[in-house]
Amino acid sequence: MQIITSRDNAKVKRLASLHKRENARSEGLVFLEGERLCKDAFESGINPSEVIVTEKNIPWAEKYAKDAEVTVLSDDCFKKIASTVNPQGIACIIKQPVLESGIPFRKDGNDIYAVLEDIQDPGNLGTIIRTADAFDFTAVIMSPSTCDPFNEKTIRATMGSVWHLPLVTMPLDKAFAFFEENGIETLAMHLKGKELNEAEIKLPAAYLIGNEGRGLSEETSSRCTRLVKIPMPGKAESLNAAAASAITGYVLASKRIL
Amino acid sequence: MQIITSRDNAKVKRLASLHKRENARSEGLVFLEGERLCKDAFESGINPSEVIVTEKNIPWAEKYAKDAEVTVLSDDCFKKIASTVNPQGIACIIKQPVLESGIPFRKDGNDIYAVLEDIQDPGNLGTIIRTADAFDFTAVIMSPSTCDPFNEKTIRATMGSVWHLPLVTMPLDKAFAFFEENGIETLAMHLKGKELNEAEIKLPAAYLIGNEGRGLSEETSSRCTRLVKIPMPGKAESLNAAAASAITGYVLASKRIL
Repeated sequence: MQIITSRDNAKVKRLASLHKRENARSEGLVFLEGERLCKDAFESGINPSEVIVTEKNIPWAEKYAKDAEVTVLSDDCFKKIASTVNPQGIACIIKQPVLESGIPFRKDGNDIYAVLEDIQDPGNLGTIIRTADAFDFTAVIMSPSTCDPFNEKTIRATMGSVWHLPLVTMPLDKAFAFFEENGIETLAMHLKGKELNEAEIKLPAAYLIGNEGRGLSEETSSRCTRLVKIPMPGKAESLNAAAASAITGYVLASKRIL
Repeated sequence: MQIITSRDNAKVKRLASLHKRENARSEGLVFLEGERLCKDAFESGINPSEVIVTEKNIPWAEKYAKDAEVTVLSDDCFKKIASTVNPQGIACIIKQPVLESGIPFRKDGNDIYAVLEDIQDPGNLGTIIRTADAFDFTAVIMSPSTCDPFNEKTIRATMGSVWHLPLVTMPLDKAFAFFEENGIETLAMHLKGKELNEAEIKLPAAYLIGNEGRGLSEETSSRCTRLVKIPMPGKAESLNAAAASAITGYVLASKRIL
């Protein structure tokens, strides 16, 4: 296999450019660096379109790349495309999974959806996706202003879950139309809501979490079938968005009839 | 009030040094920058020993400083002591609250403790403290290798809760001795545990959360009165530590007899 050794090589320049998230996104691609992120994706059935390794990782590429194009870079060239100072010498490019425009619906009476209005912190988004996967949600639905689920921080925080369940980006209007048409309960997480443990919630249900700073907008809250809150007897005025999502997800998942 | 305008002034140098967490810690101090962090502390009853502002923020200092020493810096000098590029011109120094060496005990039958074994992520620690405050835990107990609760990232993630409840750093051995002596249930969060919703847990109780990468050590797990787990029907193999702590905290808080 030919090893690219020049930092000025056109391919090296292209890879370095794709490591900037905005460039990869505009081409519908995701650049993953490091063994764990790459393996998480492959083991979830994602096929890379390109695998990039240093010479010592050629056996790794041969094991995982399958039909993908393999590019071998010198250690120095790899540093140019990597974001870490001492990169492992493993990266790949995958096609960004389509953020499904329709909302999946299992219709077994156990559907749960997390609906996010403008969540801004990549760590929060990643943790919410991880929890949604753990509790086998049908989908995570994100307003168009929610942060990018395929930025590196979010992907890391999901611990692989970003590849496990449908992620849907759509205006919340459209999501409400779907929920209303299908008789799916919509729960606004709202400090003025009824306490979660006292609300008689039945599945299928969607719960809506607002932006970290502002909470859920009044417009969105008013369209929900109920307002609910997590009882907080202590001094904190609110919970972290991912913590609130975890608790609500747990409570809803415990209502499933299996 | 005299305004310090020289970056070489001894006081400016000292403040810049205290903004490095390791230096403040070694003196038993916490350096807080920005209006929100300072106000969170003051409104929780913490009195600053020193307030540092730019000229335009002198009225702010007079409102909040009370008995504290006030230092006024030129905008340029403030930039030297700040960590942000466009600082607000507000900072303070407080004495680091004593990480209580004894464990508080309310003895009303409703005590809940979160016990952390080597949590490493400041954001996770902050979110765990915030949730513990929301659910009115008696204390958060941290092994000596848990990350510093007074580093800036953790303080930010707590949204003020770092000042609201007792934080105890001690070897877990010592914590177990206290729990055993007082008949407090100890719940190891462990993937081999009994499902949380099926375990008949009574308060007072402590739950133990392990390090993000390794989970709870076998040594610690084996000393607990029970192993419990959060049921996860989906594909994710584990939950984020702060998400698991939020769910467990919610479940335990719902068992309180009020």
